[in-house]
Amino acid sequence: MRHSAENAAEIEDVLVVESPVEFRIDGVPVAVLMRSPGDDEVLARGFALSESILLHPHEFVTIKAVEPVNTEDDRWEIILADGVAVDGEQFRRNTYTTSSCGVCGKASIDAVRIAARSVAAGPDLDSAFVSSLPDRMRSAQPEFDLTGGIHAAAAFARDGELLAIHEDIGRHNAVDKLIGELAKHRWPLDGVVMMVSGRVSFEIVQKAAVVGIPVVCGVSAASSLAADLGEEMGMTVIGFVRDGGFNVYSGGGRFVGEHR
Amino acid sequence: MRHSAENAAEIEDVLVVESPVEFRIDGVPVAVLMRSPGDDEVLARGFALSESILLHPHEFVTIKAVEPVNTEDDRWEIILADGVAVDGEQFRRNTYTTSSCGVCGKASIDAVRIAARSVAAGPDLDSAFVSSLPDRMRSAQPEFDLTGGIHAAAAFARDGELLAIHEDIGRHNAVDKLIGELAKHRWPLDGVVMMVSGRVSFEIVQKAAVVGIPVVCGVSAASSLAADLGEEMGMTVIGFVRDGGFNVYSGGGRFVGEHR
Repeated sequence: MRHSAENAAEIEDVLVVESPVEFRIDGVPVAVLMRSPGDDEVLARGFALSESILLHPHEFVTIKAVEPVNTEDDRWEIILADGVAVDGEQFRRNTYTTSSCGVCGKASIDAVRIAARSVAAGPDLDSAFVSSLPDRMRSAQPEFDLTGGIHAAAAFARDGELLAIHEDIGRHNAVDKLIGELAKHRWPLDGVVMMVSGRVSFEIVQKAAVVGIPVVCGVSAASSLAADLGEEMGMTVIGFVRDGGFNVYSGGGRFVGEHR
Repeated sequence: MRHSAENAAEIEDVLVVESPVEFRIDGVPVAVLMRSPGDDEVLARGFALSESILLHPHEFVTIKAVEPVNTEDDRWEIILADGVAVDGEQFRRNTYTTSSCGVCGKASIDAVRIAARSVAAGPDLDSAFVSSLPDRMRSAQPEFDLTGGIHAAAAFARDGELLAIHEDIGRHNAVDKLIGELAKHRWPLDGVVMMVSGRVSFEIVQKAAVVGIPVVCGVSAASSLAADLGEEMGMTVIGFVRDGGFNVYSGGGRFVGEHR
């Protein structure tokens, strides 16, 4: 029912779908995520890489449905390459967590620092390129206009090519789907500029750091810890990319030949 | 460094702070949350209630710092009332989760249905009241204008009184802080209209259901599962409360004497 200042009327509205998915390795659940259905294979791949469960895309083969499915939840087993062993028990956490920006069982950010790759010095950036990213992402993002409630993450090459884009109701899922897609064709992900539709939080920068993405841009604000991590990792963290401008919170040295 | 179409200049910018906090019961970690520091006592109280760790505000006494603090993380022990026993082991989860909208270790939404209260039929609503909520929330939310990166959750009585408002970098944390604050003075929280600054996801509606809040409004979209849960629980779920209008996805019967 759509209420306006004048009246109320029944209308058709498209809602973004969210539903749970469980990923297992050797039968042990390693993740239960509330995500937009679809692209679960790239979600699983990207999640496993960005959370340091797998260290290289070659370790991941595919996912297969876990049977019998007793609930309405989707359950998938992650199939690893021959010879790859992951201790699923390692991902047991004696911590019950929930947060939009949760550390989700990680004891401290020290673990992130250990897992993160050393990020390459490049790519060089210039203001016009960064300023162009929101419009280019939005034009490649058809679902947003339908529901108004979905997040997006896009990857651009420094020459301006849109490498991939994914949408999800969860900010982190959109990033993980993007990483999973990219990792099919390239590894590590240095040379990639990532743009997200919302805020740049610690966990977004963390995921980028782990897979070697050196530049993270967001339409909205960056958090203090995101900027700190970017500074520590030599990454460029950029917020408020909108209306032709943006704020650089770390790694400003990549803006070569411009005011830094 | 602020880049505009014309130039780049160093400016002072205020970032929203995020940092991890750990809550324990009987020495067992029950939550690690990435939150905006401050108000950890109400966050702990609200989280424990909305996640069904505690069943009544009287079971919660306070939090005290866990010593020695070996890391930069904040750690607190939740102090329970005399005679209250919570099995911390119950909150061990063999699931490593991360998502902006995560089910975070819960096996299925069946658990939510069990935990949720039966929500009271009231309060009655009218369009003018609901339409007024965003402006009234924003005017009580000073931090947003500084950082542009913080979420808010506010509670209103049906007579229009602002009962409480809390902000946090995490959407769920803002709701938990709000619930923790409200639960100091009233229980259950029927009669409360909750307004959130962002989307209405499943987990937001779930938290409201568990503590008995019958009406959940958001400035942005509602998800499919949020609407489904609202319908099932007899709750009123409202999205896109902005520009004088809004969409009602469930529980439209509370709009008494108006077009439903």
